[in-house]
Amino acid sequence: MIQLTVLYGHPQDPTAFDRYYREAHASLAKKIPGLKGFTSTKPTSLAPQEQSPYYLIANLYFEHMGTLQVGLQSPEGQAAAGDLPNFATGGTTLVVGEVEVYDPVSIS
Amino acid sequence: MIQLTVLYGHPQDPTAFDRYYREAHASLAKKIPGLKGFTSTKPTSLAPQEQSPYYLIANLYFEHMGTLQVGLQSPEGQAAAGDLPNFATGGTTLVVGEVEVYDPVSIS
Repeated sequence: MIQLTVLYGHPQDPTAFDRYYREAHASLAKKIPGLKGFTSTKPTSLAPQEQSPYYLIANLYFEHMGTLQVGLQSPEGQAAAGDLPNFATGGTTLVVGEVEVYDPVSIS
Repeated sequence: MIQLTVLYGHPQDPTAFDRYYREAHASLAKKIPGLKGFTSTKPTSLAPQEQSPYYLIANLYFEHMGTLQVGLQSPEGQAAAGDLPNFATGGTTLVVGEVEVYDPVSIS
């Protein structure tokens, strides 16, 4: 399984970000061909007095690196990636890797 | 579902980090009471020519924020957290949040 992680920096207007993410961006991302799962968290830091470096962390799952590449290069993948500048005013960092499973999990 | 994400900076000695993580740290983390799932990825950046800001990203899952807190405060949780300085020479950032599920996934 492949995990694509999108780390979103803190946006200028969190309320606008939340609304756009929920009402527009998430449905674009859900249309990416080959997507096997899609979650997000709005994290806080575990360290007292510290702010999380990221406003939102999204994880998108694909079966193989090949299906990820096909998905991202598809019109739907390009639409989702091209939508990021429309709302991600705090910037994004996208990283991808093979998942090593130490303890299996179902997220539903 | 709660996701605890551990972002590991690039270690001084990746080979030593890998060995310690696999042979020692992962088994400590797996003993944390209430742990519902545990994965890691060694990501690369999706942006050409850029290095991932993190060497490894671990996700640990718990049912509720309460079970996470109990787990982290347990002797096993303290042992896993206390083990981080033994190998995480590139530093760690720990963030935690409630998972929003846009597309359910089983990671096994």
